[in-house]
Amino acid sequence: MHYPAVMTDLYELTMLAGYYENGMHEKQASFDLFFRKIPFHGGYAVFAGLAPALDYLAQLRFTEKELAYLKGLDIFRPKFLNYLRNFRFRCKITAPPEGTVVFGNEPLVTVEGNLAEAQLAETALLNIINFQTLIATKAARIQQAAGDGTVIEFGMRRAHGPDGALSVARAAFIGGVRSTSNVWAGQVYDIPVKGTHAHSWIMAFGDELQAFHAYAEVFPDHTILLVDTYDTLKSGIPNAITVAGELRQKGHELLGVRLDSGDLSYLSREARRMFDQAGFPDVRIVASNELDEFVIDSIRNEGGRVDTYGVGTNLATASGEGGSALGGVYKLVRFDGKPRLKITSDIAKASLPDHKTLLRLVSGDGTFIQDVISREGETLKADDTVYDPINPSRHKKIPIAVHYVDIRNVVMEKGIIIGERGDLAICADYCSEQLQSLPEGSLRLHNPHIYKVSISPALNELREKLMAEHES
Amino acid sequence: MHYPAVMTDLYELTMLAGYYENGMHEKQASFDLFFRKIPFHGGYAVFAGLAPALDYLAQLRFTEKELAYLKGLDIFRPKFLNYLRNFRFRCKITAPPEGTVVFGNEPLVTVEGNLAEAQLAETALLNIINFQTLIATKAARIQQAAGDGTVIEFGMRRAHGPDGALSVARAAFIGGVRSTSNVWAGQVYDIPVKGTHAHSWIMAFGDELQAFHAYAEVFPDHTILLVDTYDTLKSGIPNAITVAGELRQKGHELLGVRLDSGDLSYLSREARRMFDQAGFPDVRIVASNELDEFVIDSIRNEGGRVDTYGVGTNLATASGEGGSALGGVYKLVRFDGKPRLKITSDIAKASLPDHKTLLRLVSGDGTFIQDVISREGETLKADDTVYDPINPSRHKKIPIAVHYVDIRNVVMEKGIIIGERGDLAICADYCSEQLQSLPEGSLRLHNPHIYKVSISPALNELREKLMAEHES
Repeated sequence: MHYPAVMTDLYELTMLAGYYENGMHEKQASFDLFFRKIPFHGGYAVFAGLAPALDYLAQLRFTEKELAYLKGLDIFRPKFLNYLRNFRFRCKITAPPEGTVVFGNEPLVTVEGNLAEAQLAETALLNIINFQTLIATKAARIQQAAGDGTVIEFGMRRAHGPDGALSVARAAFIGGVRSTSNVWAGQVYDIPVKGTHAHSWIMAFGDELQAFHAYAEVFPDHTILLVDTYDTLKSGIPNAITVAGELRQKGHELLGVRLDSGDLSYLSREARRMFDQAGFPDVRIVASNELDEFVIDSIRNEGGRVDTYGVGTNLATASGEGGSALGGVYKLVRFDGKPRLKITSDIAKASLPDHKTLLRLVSGDGTFIQDVISREGETLKADDTVYDPINPSRHKKIPIAVHYVDIRNVVMEKGIIIGERGDLAICADYCSEQLQSLPEGSLRLHNPHIYKVSISPALNELREKLMAEHES
Repeated sequence: MHYPAVMTDLYELTMLAGYYENGMHEKQASFDLFFRKIPFHGGYAVFAGLAPALDYLAQLRFTEKELAYLKGLDIFRPKFLNYLRNFRFRCKITAPPEGTVVFGNEPLVTVEGNLAEAQLAETALLNIINFQTLIATKAARIQQAAGDGTVIEFGMRRAHGPDGALSVARAAFIGGVRSTSNVWAGQVYDIPVKGTHAHSWIMAFGDELQAFHAYAEVFPDHTILLVDTYDTLKSGIPNAITVAGELRQKGHELLGVRLDSGDLSYLSREARRMFDQAGFPDVRIVASNELDEFVIDSIRNEGGRVDTYGVGTNLATASGEGGSALGGVYKLVRFDGKPRLKITSDIAKASLPDHKTLLRLVSGDGTFIQDVISREGETLKADDTVYDPINPSRHKKIPIAVHYVDIRNVVMEKGIIIGERGDLAICADYCSEQLQSLPEGSLRLHNPHIYKVSISPALNELREKLMAEHES
C-alpha cells in the first residue's frame, strides 16, 4: 500500500514549520517509541509493523497536490512549503525484528536525525506499529490458548476498514495464526487462505443434504461443511457423514465440518464421536462463533475436540479488557547534543533520556531472565545493580552466568532500509521461538508472571541527575 | 481509495464457484445487511459507510494478476476463473442515506440481483459499513455528551491502520465531530484540520516560555499552547497569559490552551478563571487525555469549562462496553422467486424473510414514534397490529395521526450508483436533525429509552408460515 505524506497529524506539520522558521529543523534529535502497559493484562507483547512503517518513511514525498492542499489551509508560509517539496526522510532507525517479544517502557524504535524528519515520523510509526503490535500480541495469545490446534483469522467483516483487515492478517500471522480467510492478504503476503461456505449456501438450496452434495461435488478435496443451519447433531453431522461416505467411494475424503453456534465444547465431542464411529477419524472439527483466547482455553479444558479455531471479531478488533489500542508513545530523548527528559510529577510518565541499548539477559539454556535498558556504550556485568524504571528504590543485582543480547538492530541508515527483509514466515518462526524462551508463567492468560525490565546504573544516574537539575 | 476485487473472504469465491458449477449463479437473490444489537448499549446507531461501499462495488473487477493468484490456489476450475474475468457487479441496492439513525433488526442495505453478484458483495459491505457505522455512532455519542462544546478527532496514532484512521475521520464527521487532526482526511474529505504542538516542542526548547514565544511568533493567529509539560497552573497557564499579552500588543489574540493531564474539570475551571482575570475571556480551553462520552459528561456535570474536547483512542477504536465492533450480518432473504428464512431454534437469530420496506412513523411535530418493517407493497394504516420482531407475543397498535416515511432509497441500479452524491456536510447535518427527532431519553448515555422497532402484520404472517412449513 502506498500512503501519502499527509498521512499525519496536523501538529507534526505545524511543529515542522515552527522548527524551520526558528532554524532548528536540522539540529540533531532522537526519539524513542515505547509503550507503558502490555495489552490485555498479559505477560508479553509481540512487536510488529516495522516493515510497512519503514516502507512508508523510505518513500515519503510531498506531492504537488498535497502541497497545494497545505497552501490552501492558509497557515504555512511559502518558504516552508518549498522546504516540504524537497523533504526526504534520511534518519537512522534502530528496532527489534518483527516477532520479538517486548515489554513496557522498553525503547522499541529509536529514530535519530534532523529534528524535522525525526518528528514527522511520529504519527505513521505510532499508527502502524501500535496497531500491528496489538494484533500480533492478541494473535499470539489466541494461538497459545489453542495449543496444537490451528487457528484461522477470519475477522475481515468486523475489522476496522479494508486495510485494517489486511494489516490484521499480516500481524496475526507474525503472532502465530498461520492462515486467513482474507484473499487480499493471501495475495499480498502469501498467507495461506481458507474458507468454504456460509449459511446462505444452505439456504439457497433449501435442503441441507442437497447443499452438502453440491458443494462436495465441486470441491471434492477441499470440503468443510457448515453443519449448524438446522440442527448440528440431528441434521448437520448425519448429513455430513452421508457426504463423507459418498466422497470416499469416489476416492476423496471429507476435510472437515464447522460448528458455528451452540456449546462448542459439547458439540465438538459429540461430532468427534459420531465421525469416529462412522469410520471418519480424520475429519477435522472446525469451531467458530465469537471465539477468543479465553473461550478457546475453556473449550480445551473441558475436553473439547476442536482441531481448528476460526477467530474473527475478537482477533481483528483486539477486543478484551486492556485491548482495543496499544498506548505506544513517541518521546524526544536527546536534542542538540543533550539528553532530554519529559519531566512530570508522576515518574511512571517520565521518559528515559538519551540513546539506549535494550539488552536481554539469557540463561545458558536459552530462557530469558530479564531485560535491562542501559545507556549506549555502557558495559554491564554480573552483580551490577539495576533499577525498576518506575520505582528506583526497587533494585536488584544482575545474576552471574547470563549472556547479554542486544535485541535491536539498525534497520535504516540515512533513510535507506538496510539488512535483509525477512519474510513473514521467518518473523512468525522467530516469534514462536521467543515465546518458548519466556520464563514459566509468562504465557499464562490470567495473572501472568511479570517479566522484569530494569534500567542500568548509568541510565538511572543520568535520569536522577536530569531530574535534580530540573528541580533546582 | 481503490481496493481490489480479492478484498473478500475466500468462502465468497468458493460459494461463487459452487453456484457457477451448479448453474445457479444467475438466479435472482436478495440479501439484507442488518445488525441485532446497538453498540455501546446505546439508544441508537448512525448509519455510515455507504458511499465508499458503493464505490467499491461499482468498480469491482478481477485483474489478471488476481486471477493468476486465484489460479495458483489450485481449487478453482479454469472456466470459473474465466467467468470471474468478466465479472461485473450489476445489482440493485436499497439503503438509507448516511447519517440516518437506525436500530437493531432493521434491513439497512438490501442487495438484489444475480446470486453470485449479490453474494460477493457481502464481505466488503460488512467490512466498510460495520466499521463506519460503529464510528459514526461513537462520534454522535461523544458530540452529544459535549453539548455546545466542539470535538476534534485525533485518534490517528491509535486507529487500526492508516486507512482505519482515514475512515474514522470520515465516519466521525458524519456523526457530528466536525474536525480532525488527520491531514490526509482533511485533503480527501475536506474536513477541517486542527492541531498545534506536542510536548516534544517544549522539550526541544527546554524552556516553556521560550517555546511558547517561538510558536506564537510563527503562528500569531493560530496558536493553541499545550500547558501541562511542567505544571499546568503554576507554569503553563501563567506563561500562556504572558504570551497572550504579547500577541495582543502586536494585534493578535491567543486562540487557546490545551490541558492534557490531571483533573481536567478542575484545571479547566482554574484556567478559565485565570484567563478571565487577566483579560482574555475568549481564550479557548481545549482538553484531551483518554476522553470518551462518559468522561466528557462528568466534566460538564462538574461545571468544567472546557470549550473543545480532543478525542483520540476511544473514538478511533470505538472502545467501551458493547463497542469495538458492530455485529452486522448479511442474510439471504429471497431466492429464485421464494422468500427465504434462516431457521434456528433461537428466534432472536432468525432472519426476516423477503423484500421489505423500512418505515419510520413520525408525529405531527416531527418526533420519531417508532419504526415498522413491512413487506414490500404492503400498506399500513392506523390501528393495525404490529409485532415485536423477537417476541411476536408482544404486539401493539399503530397510533393514529402519524405519517409514514420510507427511510431507504434505491442507491444503485444495475451496478450503477444513482441519485446525487451528498457531500459529507449534508450527511452530518442530516444526522444532527435525526438525533434531534428521537424520542426523549434515546440520547441518554446510561439506560437509554429503547426505540421500538416492530414488524408488520403481513411480515409476521409470512414468517410464521415459513416457520410452520419448516416444522412439518
